[in-house]
Amino acid sequence: MTITGFTGAGLDRADHLRLDPGRLAALMAHEEARLLRLAELDPVLDEEGRLAWEGFAADAGDCLFLGLDEGVPLFAPLVRTAALGQRAWSVFRLLAMMSARDAAIWGAARSVNEWHNRHRFCSVCGNESEVFRAGWGRKCPACGAEHFPRVDPVVIMLAEHGDRVLLGRQPQYPAGRYSALAGFVEPGESIEEAVARELMEEAGVAVRDVRYVTSQPWPFPGQLMIACLATAESDALQLDANELEDAFWASRAEVEAALAGDPAARFLAPPAFAIANTLLARWSAGE
Amino acid sequence: MTITGFTGAGLDRADHLRLDPGRLAALMAHEEARLLRLAELDPVLDEEGRLAWEGFAADAGDCLFLGLDEGVPLFAPLVRTAALGQRAWSVFRLLAMMSARDAAIWGAARSVNEWHNRHRFCSVCGNESEVFRAGWGRKCPACGAEHFPRVDPVVIMLAEHGDRVLLGRQPQYPAGRYSALAGFVEPGESIEEAVARELMEEAGVAVRDVRYVTSQPWPFPGQLMIACLATAESDALQLDANELEDAFWASRAEVEAALAGDPAARFLAPPAFAIANTLLARWSAGE
Repeated sequence: MTITGFTGAGLDRADHLRLDPGRLAALMAHEEARLLRLAELDPVLDEEGRLAWEGFAADAGDCLFLGLDEGVPLFAPLVRTAALGQRAWSVFRLLAMMSARDAAIWGAARSVNEWHNRHRFCSVCGNESEVFRAGWGRKCPACGAEHFPRVDPVVIMLAEHGDRVLLGRQPQYPAGRYSALAGFVEPGESIEEAVARELMEEAGVAVRDVRYVTSQPWPFPGQLMIACLATAESDALQLDANELEDAFWASRAEVEAALAGDPAARFLAPPAFAIANTLLARWSAGE
Repeated sequence: MTITGFTGAGLDRADHLRLDPGRLAALMAHEEARLLRLAELDPVLDEEGRLAWEGFAADAGDCLFLGLDEGVPLFAPLVRTAALGQRAWSVFRLLAMMSARDAAIWGAARSVNEWHNRHRFCSVCGNESEVFRAGWGRKCPACGAEHFPRVDPVVIMLAEHGDRVLLGRQPQYPAGRYSALAGFVEPGESIEEAVARELMEEAGVAVRDVRYVTSQPWPFPGQLMIACLATAESDALQLDANELEDAFWASRAEVEAALAGDPAARFLAPPAFAIANTLLARWSAGE
């Protein structure tokens, strides 16, 4: 089975230690404790292309307890930064070189960092809140409200019609890139309903038989990507020009050529660490 | 196929109208436009047990545009309330009487209302924010940040060992009630990883082969429930007393008796509108 991007960190997140100041202090004082190096929110790689770590200094400031790596405590700094944003294309080049495990560890650190930067103030009362739970939350000293890192579920899906699947491109994609359609799950709907709504909204395609395929986190800034297949009732398209610049039904041969990196392929496939790539590979393999 | 709870509203959410003030004003002025009645955040039922609606008054205040019901615009009031909270047990009695569709419509209104009440202030800068996108967001007049209703993905799962599944009870459950174990998906993990982590954390059970089953929204306050099965490596249990008061491996006969409402059943099944009920029914039916 294909490994989906940003999974496989393999750390014991040891949730029960997060609210235990004594044991947390002991973890920080652990002689092998390590702190992830970040450049703003971007990964820093060593000469061998692995995530760079440093020893844990007592004056490290606010930190995120990533978890235990065979007993060794791993932390990430909580960085105050204005370098937030939807996606960091420059990071994609680094990610293509990183191991799945390193990408997963860094991805968690990036997501939680971005969340802290966008949630310095309590949404209930407006006062500045404070880091708690070893970085996995913020607490308001004024009203007592507790806040936890947000994970936004997103459906990403291939509508299937005969032996072809629907691909689209957004204006900001690199030249030639096409991908699966996607959208945020809203309050009051299931995964299956969100898939049907998004395909209708963006492409005018009615679907039935929504099937879950796989999932992965996406750290720009903190989505849970939920990949599905669905059967289209018709191949007629009515595109929402605000969402999609273009869309087409890709044949199996076209998908295979794109996944193989064939320069003559009809489109450029999404990168391997994006779940759209995994979804296309699974569909192409008939899984 | 079983209908999962809080799904099947069947409204056209008409996302493209939310940011169009002119067309939104026209929807509000539509002579058949209807406003959902709420008692704080609870549903109000008419004599026939259906959701109660009223005509849309021009002075209705901030509203949520729920969507179009065969062309008729439906709205819900945005209620300022202190009646927030994890779950409203009193509402469960009403829900047991409501149609799936009514529960779904009310559920969306409840989730978005609770979100507004807990997000009156901008988490980026601390200023009071304002409703925008027809109730499907808030915007900060000071820093310009846009905020969208939060949906928290939660995994809920049955670990399977032989022909038995793991059920647990939390201290606040009604007497006799057992249910599937559950937990929030965290940043940096997939659905499959969250299922494995939660079963290990709460019950000490290692699993493989996590399989997605179905999903539904849960409006207390705004979760996306993602139901899975997983194969347990062993039936030995090590319970986290902070999470679970008790747990046991239920046989197929025990699950069937509970789902059938047999007074002699070993446990009380979760209500029909909870996805744990659907999950148990699907497992019991061998789906």
